[in-house]
Formats: sequence, C-alpha cells, structure tokens
Amino acid sequence: MLRKNRLYTPGPTQLLPAAQFAMAAANVHHRTADFRALYQRVLADLKVFVGTQNDVILMAASGTGAMEASVANLTSPGDRVLVLTAGKFGERWTALAKAYGCTIDEVSAPYGETFSLEAVRSALKPDTRVVFMQGTETSTGARHDVKGVAQLLKGTDTLLVVDAITGLGTTHFDVDAWGVDIIIGGSQKAVMIPPGLAFCAVSERAWKRMETSKQPKYYFDLRKERKSAAKGESAYTPATALIAALGAALDYIRESGKGDLAKGREVLVNNAELAAEMTRAGAEALGLKLFAPHAPAAAVSAILSPGGMDSSELVKRFRDEFGAVVANGQGEMKGKMIRIAHLGYYDYLDTIAIVAALEQIMAELQPEKVKFGNAVRAAQQVYAASRAEKRALVTA
Amino acid sequence: MLRKNRLYTPGPTQLLPAAQFAMAAANVHHRTADFRALYQRVLADLKVFVGTQNDVILMAASGTGAMEASVANLTSPGDRVLVLTAGKFGERWTALAKAYGCTIDEVSAPYGETFSLEAVRSALKPDTRVVFMQGTETSTGARHDVKGVAQLLKGTDTLLVVDAITGLGTTHFDVDAWGVDIIIGGSQKAVMIPPGLAFCAVSERAWKRMETSKQPKYYFDLRKERKSAAKGESAYTPATALIAALGAALDYIRESGKGDLAKGREVLVNNAELAAEMTRAGAEALGLKLFAPHAPAAAVSAILSPGGMDSSELVKRFRDEFGAVVANGQGEMKGKMIRIAHLGYYDYLDTIAIVAALEQIMAELQPEKVKFGNAVRAAQQVYAASRAEKRALVTA
Repeated sequence: MLRKNRLYTPGPTQLLPAAQFAMAAANVHHRTADFRALYQRVLADLKVFVGTQNDVILMAASGTGAMEASVANLTSPGDRVLVLTAGKFGERWTALAKAYGCTIDEVSAPYGETFSLEAVRSALKPDTRVVFMQGTETSTGARHDVKGVAQLLKGTDTLLVVDAITGLGTTHFDVDAWGVDIIIGGSQKAVMIPPGLAFCAVSERAWKRMETSKQPKYYFDLRKERKSAAKGESAYTPATALIAALGAALDYIRESGKGDLAKGREVLVNNAELAAEMTRAGAEALGLKLFAPHAPAAAVSAILSPGGMDSSELVKRFRDEFGAVVANGQGEMKGKMIRIAHLGYYDYLDTIAIVAALEQIMAELQPEKVKFGNAVRAAQQVYAASRAEKRALVTA
Repeated sequence: MLRKNRLYTPGPTQLLPAAQFAMAAANVHHRTADFRALYQRVLADLKVFVGTQNDVILMAASGTGAMEASVANLTSPGDRVLVLTAGKFGERWTALAKAYGCTIDEVSAPYGETFSLEAVRSALKPDTRVVFMQGTETSTGARHDVKGVAQLLKGTDTLLVVDAITGLGTTHFDVDAWGVDIIIGGSQKAVMIPPGLAFCAVSERAWKRMETSKQPKYYFDLRKERKSAAKGESAYTPATALIAALGAALDYIRESGKGDLAKGREVLVNNAELAAEMTRAGAEALGLKLFAPHAPAAAVSAILSPGGMDSSELVKRFRDEFGAVVANGQGEMKGKMIRIAHLGYYDYLDTIAIVAALEQIMAELQPEKVKFGNAVRAAQQVYAASRAEKRALVTA
C-alpha cells in the first residue's frame, strides 16, 4: 500500500498543518513592529501554555540549549548541585553540570524506573544550590514526580530546574504553586512544530540567583534575553519562521480549549494520557512488556521487544511497511525497545492505527502468538471506558 | 481526544501535502515560458496517468464540465444516444443529453447494481451515436464493466464516453485497446488535489466526430483547447495553482512507481483495491451490509446503516467524535448509507483507523451486537493475505 510519512517519535513529533503553513508564509524581518507583535503574543501565550506567571524566555536552540542555559545562569563553578537521573536525559544534566565545574551529587534509579523521594530527601544537603531533573525521561518512557521533589525543597534556598521538554503538554504541572524555578520546553514536542526553539519559564528566585552566577556565558545569557523580551525583541536573530509556526500552534491549542489556552493545554495533556493508555493496553494485549510499567509517561510509551528480538527489526518494519517512524531505544537501550510517542498532534485514528500496525507486524513475526484484533480491542475498550466516564461526569 | 480533519469522502479526497505546498508556491503568470513548460509536462503526464496515446485536454471546471463538454462536442440536437445509468451520476448523463436535445435511450439498473451487457446490447441501435456511462457510480459504490461495453461497440460508429472521475486511479483501464473515445477525470479524486480541474482524453474518432457537431459551445469547445494545448497553453485562463498541484501529484504517483508513472498508476489502483477490500471485510464483520455487493468499486465503499438507523447519525458521529468526514447517501439514498472513500491518498493506517472508528461508533450504538476488535481483525486478515500473496509472487 501507499505509505505516508508519519512521525510517532517523541520529538520531532507530527507537525500541525496550520503551523506548517504559518511557517511557510513567514516572510518577515525581526526588527519590525509586525514581528515584535508576534513575538510578544507568543511569549504571553507561552506563559499560559506553561501555566506560570513567570517570564518565559524563547531562544533559537534545541532543548539542550535551554538546559545548558539553566546550568550556566544558575550556578557558579564549584557549586553543589543534585541531579536526579534515570536515563539518557538525566545523564545529560550530569554532563552539563560537569562541563560547568559543579560539584555533583546524584540520585539515580535504574532505566525504566523513577527515584524514590526518600532517596532524594537523603541526598539533599544544606549547600545544594540547584536540583536538576526531568519531568519525563524520554529515553525510558518513565514519568518523575516533579511535585514530590518540589515539596521537598519548600522553605529551602535550593532551586528546582525541570527539563519538561517532553513533559509539557503531557503532564499537569502547577509550576508556580509547586515552586519550579526553571521549567524547560522545546518546539518539536507537544507544540507540534519542527525543532529549533527552546523556551523556559524562570522564577523571581532564579532571576535573583543569576546575579551571583560566575559562569561564562554569552548567547545563553538569560538576563540579556529578558531585557530584550521586555521590548518585544530577542537579543540575537530569532528563528522567525519557527516563531510564526509556534504562534499558529498556540492558536490551535487555544481553539482546542474552545478559546481558552489554559484549557487547551489540559485538553492536550488529557489527549496524550488517553493515547498512551490505549497504546499500553494494546501492547500488553499482545503480551509485550512495558519498559516503565510503574510510572509510565504520557509523552511516550517504551515497549520492550519480545525475548531476543532486536527492536531495530520492528522499527524497520514500521518504516518500510507502514511509513511510520517509531523510535528505537537510546544508547545501550538500542535494540531492546520501541518507543511510540503521544505528545502533541495525535488523535484516535493515529493511535488506534499504530496499535493495529504493531499487531500486524507482531502477527507476521510471531503468527502462533497473535490473534488479530486483540490489541486493537484492548485499545478500543480503553477509549470506550473514557467516553463512558466523560458521559458520567456530564450527567452527574 | 484531538480531532484531525480527515476527508474519507469520494471527492474531495485527502490532499497530498507535496501538492498543497506546490499549490501555495505557485506564483506564476500563465502566458510565460515557465508556465508553458509546466502545462506541457502536466498534459504529457496525464496521458500516462490515464494510460492513453490520445490527446488529453485539461480545463478549469468540475468533472461535470468535462461531461458537458463531451455531450456538447460529440452530439448534435436530435442525435440518438444511449445512457447507461444506475445512480445519480448516470442520471446526470441523461440530464445533460436532455439539455442538449438528444434523443435518449436508457439502460438502467437498480441503485447498487450494474446493468447487464445483454441489456446494453439490446438497447444499441444502428443510429446510436454515443454511449455515455460511468466507470464507477460514486453514488452507490458500484463498478461498471467498461471493457464489456467497449467490446459491444467494436466495429460500429458508436462512440463510448466514460465518466471515470472516480474510476481513474481505482480501476485498471486499457483506454486505447478497448476503444474508449472520451474518458473523463477530475482533480479532487485519485490525484489527491482540490476540486477545480477536469480532464479528458479524446480519441481520433472523437475529434473527427466533433467536426460535425452542431451544438452551441464556447468555453467547452474541446477543439479550441486542443489547438491551444499544442502550443503549450490553455484557451482561457488556466487554474495555475491547481495545475502546479497536479504536477506535484503526478510526480508523487511517479515516485510510487519507482520512477515509472504508468507503474505508479497501477500502485494507486492496487492500493485502492486493497483499502476497499479491507473496509468491506470490516463492515461485514460488524454485520453491516454493502450497498453494492455484486460489483463493488475500489473508489468508495457504500455501507448500509443497520435497520432503521438514519445514516446521518453515523456521519455526524464520525465527524464529531473522530474528525473524519465520510459521505452520506446522495439524493433519495441519503440517510440510508455511509460512503467511505479509498481513492487517492489513503494508506494502511488511514484504512485500519476508519474501520476501528466505525467499530467504535457501532459499539456505542449497538453494544449488544459489537465485540471490539472483530472488524479490525477482518481488515487485518485481508491485509495479511495480500502480503502473503505478494511474498508468494516474489518467491515464485
């Protein structure tokens, strides 16, 4: 059959057509009133999307750029920091903190798990300046307890920085109430546009901390960006077309919330939660194991390939047979799992179809084990139950 | 969940993104060398797509425009013509022939059926000047036997005109060998672009007949268009952006045939055949009846709504719940069926997903009758069998 190119990867994700068209149409110079109006609107909308009163900074960079900016702006060489790590992106915090000469404590959990809050509490020291963590560990499909960690830090001077690059739009965060000092997002995730933009919301405590930071920085100087943003500009040349795309995507999210962007964000999170639940049910009906069964993220489902099978073969079949791009495991997890994304622009038809395709592939590989329709049925039942629940809520 | 807007209607059909982008980029004047090059390339490609050595004429019109052009160019008032009709589009031929004062014979079959060749043979008279028919009756989902009718006309002076607006790209036609004098296509069908263009391939016999036609015509004067086309132009202002889109779509079809456009056309037809077979199997597994079970078209499947249920409710649920636009019945068939299209840009994921959505809707309407997964299983089995067959062919 024909094969449409479809991304089921946890970034880049499937593009929103309205954003693609806005991007194509963006023929604009960045030092003009037109662009300033767009930029200010996007920054204001991002605050609502993130769910914060804090200033949001937008930069032309991948998510890692904003992670680096957090380290470079909040620490000084020798500062003690605590990294919570349970996967490749946790390890990136450690690598960044090391690159900037921090003294690093670590709480780690095995890949696929999340760390215990007790272990975090024990690891916190009076001189811990910053805790770095993920909202969702994209490499394993596990979700971490941001709220729990934030509560441990209440009343201390320790800042909390959360890489929510795949967490935003897939988890309900209450950034300001919990006290998250920097929360980081990226364009190629739940906001449904191509890679190239990172953004972060920065608390007043974090702005204050930056005054004492002694790290070298220039492009990633957040205070410089804040000053420019106050004038409706970026410090350096902004990625204008991507920002136009982001504007269109935020409009779409607002429309999904019937004109209310904050409600649209909830819709997006609930959508990812349901798609993830459908996918997990489908995989389990096929007898497949989840890599992160105890704290599964809504951003991405990591599904272990059955005993001995190289998951690269599954990835290849999704691509060759169905045009669907799913992710392999990362690093040493490569070959052991596939990862199917739910963050952003996926609907019922996308979700049920990828479950059906997984079933079709597994039936060809293990015909004795698969009875067609069982995986899809499990996903359909999850969907039906969520419909029934919604109706019950409306009736009540 | 989120709802993507997806057309499963038998025209307009789902758009090819590459064609959308080509359309958006088409900033061109039509009396320039650039546009002439595009126009000539599209006309040449259309010949291959239709599968003919005959000249192809392209016009800014809906498919009905090319139907009218056929009547206006091939007949004179009072001419005896035979219309083969088994649905709303067959009836359109009668209406057109009547508008132009032809003497009309009809062979009709009930909606959902096709006419017998014996009846056609009996209805042909020595002075029948033209036979008008459909390749696929879009309103009922039935396929007519163009080859069989063409064979009845061999050795006579009777011309054959086929409305293949939904037939092209969903049925294997051998236009020149069979002796089809005019075959008509439209842009919003298997070529995956928006409405606005009609095209037709015209035989030498048909060009000759036009010399004697006494019908009034101006915009639809095919001989005038032929003269312009020879110079790489259209007689009147062409729909430039749609023609750019059509060029991109034909490129896509060529790529689907690994660089061979004729092979790409076969791929497209086989794709529609398989999608239609999967959909029919899914519907039947749900206990639903097909409206045209004896000669089902690959362009569109007409599925009867179960006893007493208004199909408008099904159409509405597809739209409201899943963002999927399926067609209702046309005219007096409205409320009795839904029609799901397979022509053009539909892949496995689109097909299995619409079957799953149909199952989800039916389970909500008739929970006692539907066991989740059965419809999808039936479609998956069709797909698996086609894969096995393909492997057997490769091995043999």
